[in-house]
Amino acid sequence: MSSLTIYAAKLLLKRLTEDEDDPYVSNPDDQLEEPNPVTEEIFSSWALFILLFLLCSALWSSYFLQQRRIKAIHETVLSIFYGMVVGLIIRVSPGHYIQDAVKFNSGYFFNILLPPIILNSGYELHQANFFNNLGSILTFAIPGTFMSALVLGIILYIWTALGLDGINLEFVDALAVGATLSATDPVTILSIFNAYKVDPKLYTIIFGESLLNDAISIVMFETCQKFHGHPVGLSSFFEGIGLFLMSFTISTIIGILVGIFVALILKHSHIRRYPQIETCLVLLFAYESYFFSNGAHMSGIVSLLFCGITLKHYAFYNMSRRTQIATKYIFQLLAQLSENFIFIYLGLSLFTEVELVFKPLLIIVTFISICIARWSAVFPLSKFLNFLYRARFEKFTNRTALNGGISSQAVPDEISHSYQMMIFWAGLRGAVGVALAMGIQGEAKWTLLATVLVVVVLTVILFGGTTASMLEILGIKVGVIDDTNDSDDDFDIEAPRLPYSSSPPSSNVFIGNRRFGTPQRTTTPPVKGMYKDDATRSRNESSASLASGIPRNSRSSFNNSTSDLHDGNVNDDDDDLVSSDVDDLLPGVSNAALTTYPQATSGGVLGAFLSAEEHSKWFTKFDEQVLKPVLLDTLPNGRRREDANPGNSNEQV
Amino acid sequence: MSSLTIYAAKLLLKRLTEDEDDPYVSNPDDQLEEPNPVTEEIFSSWALFILLFLLCSALWSSYFLQQRRIKAIHETVLSIFYGMVVGLIIRVSPGHYIQDAVKFNSGYFFNILLPPIILNSGYELHQANFFNNLGSILTFAIPGTFMSALVLGIILYIWTALGLDGINLEFVDALAVGATLSATDPVTILSIFNAYKVDPKLYTIIFGESLLNDAISIVMFETCQKFHGHPVGLSSFFEGIGLFLMSFTISTIIGILVGIFVALILKHSHIRRYPQIETCLVLLFAYESYFFSNGAHMSGIVSLLFCGITLKHYAFYNMSRRTQIATKYIFQLLAQLSENFIFIYLGLSLFTEVELVFKPLLIIVTFISICIARWSAVFPLSKFLNFLYRARFEKFTNRTALNGGISSQAVPDEISHSYQMMIFWAGLRGAVGVALAMGIQGEAKWTLLATVLVVVVLTVILFGGTTASMLEILGIKVGVIDDTNDSDDDFDIEAPRLPYSSSPPSSNVFIGNRRFGTPQRTTTPPVKGMYKDDATRSRNESSASLASGIPRNSRSSFNNSTSDLHDGNVNDDDDDLVSSDVDDLLPGVSNAALTTYPQATSGGVLGAFLSAEEHSKWFTKFDEQVLKPVLLDTLPNGRRREDANPGNSNEQV
Repeated sequence: MSSLTIYAAKLLLKRLTEDEDDPYVSNPDDQLEEPNPVTEEIFSSWALFILLFLLCSALWSSYFLQQRRIKAIHETVLSIFYGMVVGLIIRVSPGHYIQDAVKFNSGYFFNILLPPIILNSGYELHQANFFNNLGSILTFAIPGTFMSALVLGIILYIWTALGLDGINLEFVDALAVGATLSATDPVTILSIFNAYKVDPKLYTIIFGESLLNDAISIVMFETCQKFHGHPVGLSSFFEGIGLFLMSFTISTIIGILVGIFVALILKHSHIRRYPQIETCLVLLFAYESYFFSNGAHMSGIVSLLFCGITLKHYAFYNMSRRTQIATKYIFQLLAQLSENFIFIYLGLSLFTEVELVFKPLLIIVTFISICIARWSAVFPLSKFLNFLYRARFEKFTNRTALNGGISSQAVPDEISHSYQMMIFWAGLRGAVGVALAMGIQGEAKWTLLATVLVVVVLTVILFGGTTASMLEILGIKVGVIDDTNDSDDDFDIEAPRLPYSSSPPSSNVFIGNRRFGTPQRTTTPPVKGMYKDDATRSRNESSASLASGIPRNSRSSFNNSTSDLHDGNVNDDDDDLVSSDVDDLLPGVSNAALTTYPQATSGGVLGAFLSAEEHSKWFTKFDEQVLKPVLLDTLPNGRRREDANPGNSNEQV
Repeated sequence: MSSLTIYAAKLLLKRLTEDEDDPYVSNPDDQLEEPNPVTEEIFSSWALFILLFLLCSALWSSYFLQQRRIKAIHETVLSIFYGMVVGLIIRVSPGHYIQDAVKFNSGYFFNILLPPIILNSGYELHQANFFNNLGSILTFAIPGTFMSALVLGIILYIWTALGLDGINLEFVDALAVGATLSATDPVTILSIFNAYKVDPKLYTIIFGESLLNDAISIVMFETCQKFHGHPVGLSSFFEGIGLFLMSFTISTIIGILVGIFVALILKHSHIRRYPQIETCLVLLFAYESYFFSNGAHMSGIVSLLFCGITLKHYAFYNMSRRTQIATKYIFQLLAQLSENFIFIYLGLSLFTEVELVFKPLLIIVTFISICIARWSAVFPLSKFLNFLYRARFEKFTNRTALNGGISSQAVPDEISHSYQMMIFWAGLRGAVGVALAMGIQGEAKWTLLATVLVVVVLTVILFGGTTASMLEILGIKVGVIDDTNDSDDDFDIEAPRLPYSSSPPSSNVFIGNRRFGTPQRTTTPPVKGMYKDDATRSRNESSASLASGIPRNSRSSFNNSTSDLHDGNVNDDDDDLVSSDVDDLLPGVSNAALTTYPQATSGGVLGAFLSAEEHSKWFTKFDEQVLKPVLLDTLPNGRRREDANPGNSNEQV
C-alpha cells in the first residue's frame, strides 16, 4: 500500500503543480497505480549521490581552506553556497522526483542529523570548564532565550499588525516564530574559535549556551504551538514556564539515568569481551535516551547532552579500550558528517522548497529584529552576571568598594565588554530554527518559513564571515591553547585516562597494561567545529600565561591526575584548585587576580553564599568517594576489578 | 506542499483501509490539510525508540548466547522472532502511524542497510583466500544463480499454471520471483562458521558466493522487470546475459577506479593531517561508488565490494593511522548494526505489511522448490569444478588415471562431498530477496511478496538452526583457526601492517615510527557474522595442520612480510608459494597433497593452462612492481615518502 500511497501523493502533487510528464512512470504498460520502483530506486540513488557529492565537496573545501589557511571564507558558508547552487540546478531541471527527495524534512533533521551532534558535544565536552561556567551558561540560555524570543515576537507582532505584508499573526504565533529564531548555532563560530585558539572560557559559554538554547527554543516553540488558536492569558505564561522547567529537569534526569545505566551494565557484565557489541550498545543506548525523551514530550536534546556527559564521566572507564576509541571516533565522524550536511541542506532548501513565499521587507525587518533581540538578551544579562560575580568576589575578599582599590581589580569570572560583544556576535542562527519553522501552522506558514530560512542563511554569512575580523577588532586573546597536531604518522591514540584523581601516574599503570615503553603524549587533533578536548597545552606557545615556561613534565606535580598530560581533559577534580584555576581561567582572565584570589577552602569566608567552586568541590568529593566506586569498574589504584581477580578474567569464548 | 502531500496521501490511505480515527490530527481546530507535526514527531520518535530497542535486544541476546555458549538457537533467528513479536503488537494496537513508520521500505534497505554490509565485507575480505578461490566463487555465483533462478521460475510457472492458487504468472514474472529467491544470505551461516572456526576455504566460497549472487539476483530481477509485459524470446535471453556481463564488468571497473582514486588522493594531498576529514571522505567515496553504479543501471553491490577491496589493498596504506583504525571500526559497527536491523525488519514486516496475502500451499511449494533449485545449482557445478581441478592437476603432475595412483590422491582445490553438502545447506535466503520482491509488479504482487517473506524466514530458521548439527554430521573440520580473542583489557589495536612483501620486518621499522618497544602480536577479534582477518593463527590449536607446532616467531622465516604475524592477513604475496599455500590451503585440504604439489615456478610444467596460482603470481608481481609504487605512499622499505623528505612533513596548521 505504501507504493500506492506514494504514487497517489505524487499524482496529486503533479496536478497541483502542473508539472510536465512524470519521469517515474516510464513504462506505459504499467497500471497507473504502480510507479516503476526500479526508476524510483534509480532516482533515489542519484539523489543520494548528489547529496554525498555535496558532502565530499564541503569536506574537501574544509581541508583546502585549512591547508591554505584561508580565513576570509568559512567552510560553512561554502557548504550553504554549494547547497544553493545544486538546489538551483535541481529546481530548474525537468521533473521533480529528485527535488522531492532532497527536500528539507524536519523529521530527518530532528531524528537523524541533530542527535549525533548533541551526543558528540556531550561526549567530548570539557566538563570542568562547562560546570565551572554553568551559571553564565544557564543564564544566557534560559532567560536569554526567553527574552530574545519575546523581543522578536513583539516586534514581529507589531510589524505584521501594521499589515504591510498582508500577514496576520496572533501574538502566540509571533512568539513561536521568535522561538524558532532564538536557537543559535555554534558550529561556525566554534570552528573559527578552534582555529584561532580562543580563550576556553569564552568558548565554553558560547558553546554551552547554544547547546541549551536549542533545547529551550524547541520547548518554547512546542509550548506556543499548544496554545495556537486558544486564548492566551497571563496564567498560560506561567503555565508555560512551569512546563518548561519540568521538561528541562526531567530530561536531564533521563539523560543522567541512562548514562548511569550504561555504566552499570558495562561494569556488571562481561560485554567488554565483545567490543563490537559493546560499541553498538553504547551508541544505541544514548540514542534511546533521545528518542524516549522526545516521545515523552520532554527535551531530547537535553537528555542526550547529559547522557553523553555522564557516559564520558563514568561509563567510559568501564569500556574496553577498543570501545573507548571506537566510540570517540564514531561520534566524531557522525557529528562531522551531520554538521556539514545540515548546512548543505539549508542551502538546498532555499531552492527546492517550491512553496516558499519570499517577502523581502519582512526578511529585512526580521533580521534587524534578531540583532535587537540578541542585544537585549546578552548585554543586560551580562551586566547582571557581572554584578553577581562582583558581589560574590567582594564577599569573599571581604572588601567592598568602600575599602577602595577593588574597582581596579579585575574580578575573575567577570565577562568583559569585549566578551559580551563577542557573545552577541556569536548569535548565528542555525538549522534548528529552520526545522522548527517547518512546523509552523497557519496560513502564513510558507512566508514565515521562507523568512526564517533566509534570515538563518544571512546570519551565517554575515556574522560568521566577520567573526575572524571581530576577534581582532575586539582584541580577544587568541593562540591560547596550542593544539599540537601530531604528525599524521603518529600512532596518535591517546594513552588511557585514569578516572580517579588519586590514581597513580599512568607511566606506571595502564588500564590494559600490555603497553610497553613509556607513555606517549598523544593528542587528538581537534574536531572542526566542535570544541574537543583541550588537547595538549604547550605552555611554551600560549601567550601571557602564568605557567609559561613550565616544562611539560613538571605539570604532573600540579595535579595528581596525569590525565591532563594526555589529552588535557581535566577530570572534575578540583582538589587542587590552583592548577584547575590555572587550567580554566588562565589565559583571557587577568592573571593578576589569581595571585590574590584566595582558595575557597582557606579561611572562613564562605558564609551563606556558596561559590561555584564550592559546589564543584562538594560534588567532586561525593563523586570520588561515593559515585565512582559504585559505578566504575576501576579501583582507585587504576586497576580493573577483573585484573584484581585474575581467575575470572581472560576467559575467552 | 510536502505536508499537504503527506496528508492527502494519508487521507486516501485511510479511506481505502477504513481505519479508525486518525491519531495524527489531534487538534480539531486545525484545518484538515495540516497534520499536527508535533504529534508526527512524537510518533516517529516512538517508532525509532522501538526499533532501536529491538536492536539493543538483538545485540544483547547475541552477547548472551555467546557468553553462555548456547548454540541451539542462533541470534539471527532471535532477531527475527523479536521483530515478529513487536510487529504483532504494533499490528493489533490501535492507530497505524507507527505501523506505517516501521514498514519495510526497499528504498531504505538498498540505500541505507545494505551498503555498510557490502563495504565491510570488501574491506575486511581475506584477499588471498578470495582470489585463490575466485574460480569456484564465480562458478557458484553466476551460473549457479542463473540455474537456481531458472529452476525456481520453471517450477513456479508450472505450479501457478495449474491454477490451484488462483494466480496467473507469466514466465518472465516467475523468473523474476526465482531471481529474488536466489540471493543467499551468509550472515547466519558465517557467524556459526566463525564460532566453530571452520575451514577458511569453505568459508570463503560461501561468503564470496553470497556476496556476488546478491548482485546477480538484483541484475537478473531488473532484467526480468524490463521484459515484464513484453513478449520474450530466445534473443531476449542472450540479450539479458549480455546485459548482465556488461553490468558486472563495468561495475567492477567502477569500484576499482574509485578505490584507486581514493588512494591517489590520499597520496598526493596532505589530507592525512586531518584524520577526521580523511575518514569521512573515505567513507563517502566508497558510498558514492555504490550510488553512482546504481544510478547508472549497474550493480552497486559489485562496485562497492571491489571498491572496498581496492581501498584495503592500496588506500589503506596511505591513510593516517587514526583513519586506518577509524575506518575499520566504523565499517564494522555499521555492518553489525545493519545486519541485526535487517533481520528485525524481516520479522516486523511479517505483521506490519498489512496487505500481504498468505497462501500456505504456494509457500510450501516454493520452499521445496528452493531446495530443489539449490540442489540443482550446487551439485552439478561442484562436479564440474572438480572435473576441471582434476584435469588441471593431472596436467601439472603429468599424470593421468592411466598412470595409476592418482584417483587415490586427493586433488587440492577439490570440493569434497561434505563441502558440497554444506554449500547446499548454506543457501539461506535473506533480505535481499524480500527487498527485491517488493518491486514485483502485477496483480499477484502481494501474494508473491508474502510467499517470499515467509520462505526467507523459514530458511533462516530451518537451515540456520541446523547448521551447527550439519557441521558435525558432515564431519567438516572445525577449530581450524584459533582466533585468540585478546583479553578486553588489551590495547588491541593492531600494529601497522606493511604493504610490501619486501618491507623489512616491522620489529625494526614502523609506519609512524614513534612506537616504542617490541611490536605486539595483536589481533582484532572477529566480527560476528562477517569473516574478518584470519586473525592470529595459533598453530597449537589447529587440528591436523601441517604447521602445527611451528612456534609463532619462526614463521617470519617463512614469509618476508611479517604482516602475517600481526593480523594474519596475508598480503597478495605469493612469492613464497609454500608458505602461502600453507596459509591458504592448509586446514581442510589434505596436507599430503602439499608435499607433492609442485611449485608452479619450478620445472617447466606450465603449458597453456595457467593455474590460479599462476595468475595470482603474475598479478602479484605486477602489483608489487608497478601498481603499488604508483598508488602507495610508502616506499618499499616501509617508510612514508614524507618521512623521507622531512622538510615537507610535520607542517601543522
